[in-house]
Amino acid sequence: MNHSQLFKNIAEKKSFLCVGLDPEIEKIPSFLLKTRDPVFEFNRRIIDSTHQYAVAYKPNVAFYECNGPKGWKSLESTLNYIRKNFPGILVIADAKRGDIGNTSKMYAREFFENMNFDAVTVAPYMGEDSVTPFLTYSNKWVILLALTSNKGADDFQYHNEDGLKLFERVLTLSRRWGSIDNLMYVVGATRAEMLKDIRKIVPEHFLLIPGVGAQGGSLQEVVKYGITSKCGLLVNSSRGIIFADKSENFDKVAGEKAAEIQKEMELYLAQHKLI
Amino acid sequence: MNHSQLFKNIAEKKSFLCVGLDPEIEKIPSFLLKTRDPVFEFNRRIIDSTHQYAVAYKPNVAFYECNGPKGWKSLESTLNYIRKNFPGILVIADAKRGDIGNTSKMYAREFFENMNFDAVTVAPYMGEDSVTPFLTYSNKWVILLALTSNKGADDFQYHNEDGLKLFERVLTLSRRWGSIDNLMYVVGATRAEMLKDIRKIVPEHFLLIPGVGAQGGSLQEVVKYGITSKCGLLVNSSRGIIFADKSENFDKVAGEKAAEIQKEMELYLAQHKLI
Repeated sequence: MNHSQLFKNIAEKKSFLCVGLDPEIEKIPSFLLKTRDPVFEFNRRIIDSTHQYAVAYKPNVAFYECNGPKGWKSLESTLNYIRKNFPGILVIADAKRGDIGNTSKMYAREFFENMNFDAVTVAPYMGEDSVTPFLTYSNKWVILLALTSNKGADDFQYHNEDGLKLFERVLTLSRRWGSIDNLMYVVGATRAEMLKDIRKIVPEHFLLIPGVGAQGGSLQEVVKYGITSKCGLLVNSSRGIIFADKSENFDKVAGEKAAEIQKEMELYLAQHKLI
Repeated sequence: MNHSQLFKNIAEKKSFLCVGLDPEIEKIPSFLLKTRDPVFEFNRRIIDSTHQYAVAYKPNVAFYECNGPKGWKSLESTLNYIRKNFPGILVIADAKRGDIGNTSKMYAREFFENMNFDAVTVAPYMGEDSVTPFLTYSNKWVILLALTSNKGADDFQYHNEDGLKLFERVLTLSRRWGSIDNLMYVVGATRAEMLKDIRKIVPEHFLLIPGVGAQGGSLQEVVKYGITSKCGLLVNSSRGIIFADKSENFDKVAGEKAAEIQKEMELYLAQHKLI
């Protein structure tokens, strides 16, 4: 999937919602725990009830890894389920990997060959050779951390050399490593006011925006400062959708929450004459 | 294991060698490929022939993950083998993880509870709340990336605010998050001349030094600028030991390579009156 195809999907679904599949085992409705693979079963029901409102799913790999080898099976089953039933949806491995060249190559192989993810999140600290092995695959995306949504983002990401903050340097250097067809950036919704400056550096790239919902970011602000003529936004919500309810109706409620967000997104897309 | 115990092990073994267990499947001697778990079998033989020269082993998780669920089993088998047979040796999961607080907590649980690693490497880009969940465990270590050994280190790690480079800011801020008993730093041997300045910020912390051998760093230089009164160094060699030979004697040759490095280390430890 390239930049144009992603925008086409957004226009068709009238949504730029990414649903974060972070199935923390303690938070999964208890009646699912007696199924063979509770994590997959939870995801499957969330996917069935949200797919019409979402253009992307983003499993955070930590929540699978922490269950050992069977966690990886849950992750693969989830990916395969989306692939088989909803083939147009972008699937992002939120893995935040990054290592020296020959090691990043192994991570790229894992997520793009062994598993067939469309995109993987990558941490920039180790620089170009830690990122480029992921960019050698066609029809695959790197989503590079730029400005994250957490409190700790203040510790290093604003480190300022001659007016250039570290996250701006990440954007400025890395945009040359790939193109708008294979490179996106993570920018936290809790920093929506920074999107104006970020758009000066990367006017067209898609941005993956976490932090709306549980973390307190505003969708309206994100759109105000971040939207482009091809949308250019994937806004993620995890806990606000998947853990909105813990009863046997959790999936129905998740669908309703996703539908609410989609409705708001549709409004903004129309306001910006993108649909 | 704390700072004193690690130094005690170093003094006893007259070595501060960490052997990197990066069993790239294409590089494993072909006769092992017919065994049930070639990766574990490779590691087992490397461990049997190097353990007397090493105070630490460092499996790089990428080389296991890329084999899917069975890769995680190889990793666990390797860890358990070291634990059972050579219980004093520090085992480091070279995972370079780091995510927002609730996610890092999952990674910490994976490496420190589900598996019983002594240490995990962590990427600093997302700041304090991405690191501290790993520091809540007693007798466990975080090894935070500071200055890495690869070319891409130049891209961001030297980003300079008022004379303070990013990697120096990482050291300066993060040293308050833990202590010399639960926090180490990755500093590449290819940047040995920087160790002098690094020691001004973290005079006592252990440093994990990759980049000796295949990557071109000099052990002598590392010792010259980095050694402390409690050694304070773990020097890693991966490819230079484990892939020194590809015949049926690969383990014997690996042992010889490790012994060579240990001999050189013994000399330096004696020169600095640490043994």
